[in-house]
Amino acid sequence: MNTFSFKIIAKDKKSKARVGRITTAHGVIETPAFVAVGTRATVRGLTPSDLKEIGVQILFGNTYHLHLRPGEDIVQEFGGLGKFMGWNGPTITDSGGFQVFSLGQKKIKILQGDEDQTEAKLVDIKEGSVIFRSHIDGTLHEFTPEKSIEIQQKLGADIVLVFDECAPHPSTHEYTKQAMERTHKWAIRSLAAHKSEYQNPKSETISNVQNPNDKKRLKQALYGIIQGGVYKDLRKESAKLISSLPFDGIAIGGVSVGESKKQMRDALEWSIPFMPEEKPRHFLGIGEIDDIFDSIEKGMDTFDCVIPTRLARYGMVFVSPPEGNRDNKFMIDTKKSIFAKDKSPLTKDCSCSVCKTFTRGYVHHLFRVQELLAYRLASYHNLFFINNLFAKTRESILKGKFLEMKSEWMG
Amino acid sequence: MNTFSFKIIAKDKKSKARVGRITTAHGVIETPAFVAVGTRATVRGLTPSDLKEIGVQILFGNTYHLHLRPGEDIVQEFGGLGKFMGWNGPTITDSGGFQVFSLGQKKIKILQGDEDQTEAKLVDIKEGSVIFRSHIDGTLHEFTPEKSIEIQQKLGADIVLVFDECAPHPSTHEYTKQAMERTHKWAIRSLAAHKSEYQNPKSETISNVQNPNDKKRLKQALYGIIQGGVYKDLRKESAKLISSLPFDGIAIGGVSVGESKKQMRDALEWSIPFMPEEKPRHFLGIGEIDDIFDSIEKGMDTFDCVIPTRLARYGMVFVSPPEGNRDNKFMIDTKKSIFAKDKSPLTKDCSCSVCKTFTRGYVHHLFRVQELLAYRLASYHNLFFINNLFAKTRESILKGKFLEMKSEWMG
Repeated sequence: MNTFSFKIIAKDKKSKARVGRITTAHGVIETPAFVAVGTRATVRGLTPSDLKEIGVQILFGNTYHLHLRPGEDIVQEFGGLGKFMGWNGPTITDSGGFQVFSLGQKKIKILQGDEDQTEAKLVDIKEGSVIFRSHIDGTLHEFTPEKSIEIQQKLGADIVLVFDECAPHPSTHEYTKQAMERTHKWAIRSLAAHKSEYQNPKSETISNVQNPNDKKRLKQALYGIIQGGVYKDLRKESAKLISSLPFDGIAIGGVSVGESKKQMRDALEWSIPFMPEEKPRHFLGIGEIDDIFDSIEKGMDTFDCVIPTRLARYGMVFVSPPEGNRDNKFMIDTKKSIFAKDKSPLTKDCSCSVCKTFTRGYVHHLFRVQELLAYRLASYHNLFFINNLFAKTRESILKGKFLEMKSEWMG
Repeated sequence: MNTFSFKIIAKDKKSKARVGRITTAHGVIETPAFVAVGTRATVRGLTPSDLKEIGVQILFGNTYHLHLRPGEDIVQEFGGLGKFMGWNGPTITDSGGFQVFSLGQKKIKILQGDEDQTEAKLVDIKEGSVIFRSHIDGTLHEFTPEKSIEIQQKLGADIVLVFDECAPHPSTHEYTKQAMERTHKWAIRSLAAHKSEYQNPKSETISNVQNPNDKKRLKQALYGIIQGGVYKDLRKESAKLISSLPFDGIAIGGVSVGESKKQMRDALEWSIPFMPEEKPRHFLGIGEIDDIFDSIEKGMDTFDCVIPTRLARYGMVFVSPPEGNRDNKFMIDTKKSIFAKDKSPLTKDCSCSVCKTFTRGYVHHLFRVQELLAYRLASYHNLFFINNLFAKTRESILKGKFLEMKSEWMG
C-alpha cells in the first residue's frame, strides 16, 4: 500500500516556482515547505504541540544519531519516530551518510588500555560499505545501503533517503567522481533493498502505521540523492542517472558542506533540468533565506536546515525587512548590549507567541545568564518565522506574485 | 494603598493545618501553596503560560541574582519582575541575604594583574552591612537592609523579605546568637526603610502597578524572618521578636542549609507557637514532600523550594504512591536504563500535559542525549505534581481529611 503522492497545484508564470501538495500517511505537506530538523527525535527544546502551533508540517530525523541513541529497535518498539516523540505528522529520515562522512573528516583518540592513545579516522569507506566509529564512544559501526534502508524502515518515517557519500569540500574531480559513482551504485542497492523489503518483509511489523493495532505496512517513499560536488559534468551525470530511477522524490545533496553560494546555485542550475517535473524535489541542508528564494524560483519544493534552531541557540533571531536584509541574513544577535533595554518584540509584526509575550530585553537577559528558556524562545520564534515565510511564498506563487515578494525581501 | 491581605478560610480540627487566601495586587494565592522558584526571572525552561497551566500561583525571584544580572534598574524599567518576564500573577523576592551568605562560604580566586592569584572570601560581614563579591565576575557589592529593600522595591514584587543573615551550618551557639542579633537589628532597619519609602518615596514610579499608566504606588507586603539556627533558646527568642514586629507575614529561615530533618522540625516546633495566627507563614527553602506534610500539619502556609526544578534537571521526576514513597522521596531517576523501553507516563494518573503526551522511555532518551527538551518536560511535570499535591492538601483540609491524606502518602 503506497499512500505517498505529490501533486502540483499551481505554477508561477514568471519563474519555475510551484505550489504543490505531498500526501503521506501522516498528513499533507503544502510546498514549498520547510522541514524542521529534529536530529535526535526532538526539535531543540520544543514540544510537538509547539511545532503544530508554529505551523511545522514535517520533521526530519537523523538516522546516524538515532541509530547510536536510542537505537532503531527502541524507536520501532515505540511505534516509529513520530510516535516515539509524540509527533503525529509526517516525518522524513536521512540515510546516515551525511553524518558518517562529515564526522569522518575528524580524527578521534582511541583509548588502548588505560594510557595509550592512538589517533584513528572516524570513517573507512569501502566500495560496499562504510565502517565508522561512533563520535560518542568510539565503538565501530558499519553502514551499507541495505543496512541504512533497514534502519530507516525501523525508524518508520514517511519519507526515507538512499545511502550516499557526501564528498568533503574541497575534493578533486577524480575523488568526487569516484564518490559519485559509489553513490550511484548505492542508490541502486538502496532502491533494491527498499523494494525487496516490501515484497519480502523481514520484520512482522512496520512502525509507521496510523493505528498501532493495524499491522498493515505502509510503504515508505524513497528519495534519490544527486551528488557530484562542484563539477558541472558530474552534477549533470548524477542528476540524469538519479532522475532516471523509480524514486518517489529527488533530493540534491552535498551543497551545504563548505561550498560557496555560487557553487550551491551552480549545482542547482545544472541539476534541475534533469529532475522530473512530477516528483517532489528536496534540497538537503539548505535554509538561508536568500538560498530559499533562489531555489524556490528554480522549482525546488522542500528544504531542511538546522540554521533556524542552531543559530537560535547562539541568540540569533530572525527579523523582518527592512531591519532584516540580505547582509545580516535577516538576523539580529540578541546578546548584544544594545538590546538590554529594548521593549520591542523580537521582530515587528510577528504573530508568534514569543513575540506576543516577550521583549528583546528579556530574551537578551535570558541569553546573558544562559537560561534554558532562551534557547526555547529563540528556536520557537525562528521556526515560526521561517514557516511563516514559506506560507507567504506559497501564497505569493498562487497569486502570481512570487518575484515581487522575492524582490521585497532581497532588495 | 495596601492591597495585601490574608484570610483563614478553614482550620483542620485534628491538626494545626489551615486553608487560607493571600490577596495581592496581582492575584490570589490559595494556601497551603507552593511558590515556584524563578531565580533569574525565569523558571527553568518554562514560560509563564506553562506556569499558569501547571497551576503555579506565585513566583519567587532572587534579589542577589537579579541585582547582578540584569540589575534592578533594568527590571524596574520593564515594569517590575512580573512584567519583565511576562508573568501577570503574584511574585515574591528574597532579600539577597541567603545567597550572599551561602555563596560566602566559598572562597574564590581573585585575579591580580595577569598572573597572580590570591584567595579571597566572597563575603565580609560587618554589623551595618555585608560586602560581597559577585560569583560571576568578582566585582565588589555591598548590601545593607536599606539597600536590599530599595532593590526589592525596584524589582517590584508583591511580597518582599527583610535582609537577614543566614548563619552557616554548623555554627556555634555564640556565632548563631551574634548572627541572630544582627538579623534582628536588620529586621528593624528593613521595616523602617520599607515604611519610609512609602511615606517619603525616593523614586517617582514603583513598578508593581497593574496599569502601567497608573503611577499610584502599591505597597509591597514585608515579611520578617525567624533565625536562630539549631538552638532552642535562639529560635524562641527570634520567633518572639520577629512576631512582635508589624510585618505582613512571617517566614522561618535558615532551616534548609545542611541541617537534618530533625533539626528542621525542631526549628518549626519551637517557632510556631509565637507566630501570629492571623499572618501568613512562609517556610524558606523547604519542599521535600515529607517536610511539606509535617509543616502544613503544624500550620505553615507557603513554601518555596528549588527541588522540583533542580532535581528535574538531573532526570529525577516525581511519582505518585505507591511507587513513590518516603524512602525514594517520591522520585524516580529517568536516566536509569530500566526506563529505556518503558511506555508508561512519568507517573500514573497524572493529568499534566507531559504525562498525557510522552513516555518514560522518551524522557529517558532525552536525558541520555542531554537534549534541552528533557529539562523542560521534567521541570513541567515536577512543578505540576507538587502544585497538584498542594491543591489536594487544601481540599483534604477543607474536608477534614488532611491527616488521612498525609498517612496515605507517608505510609
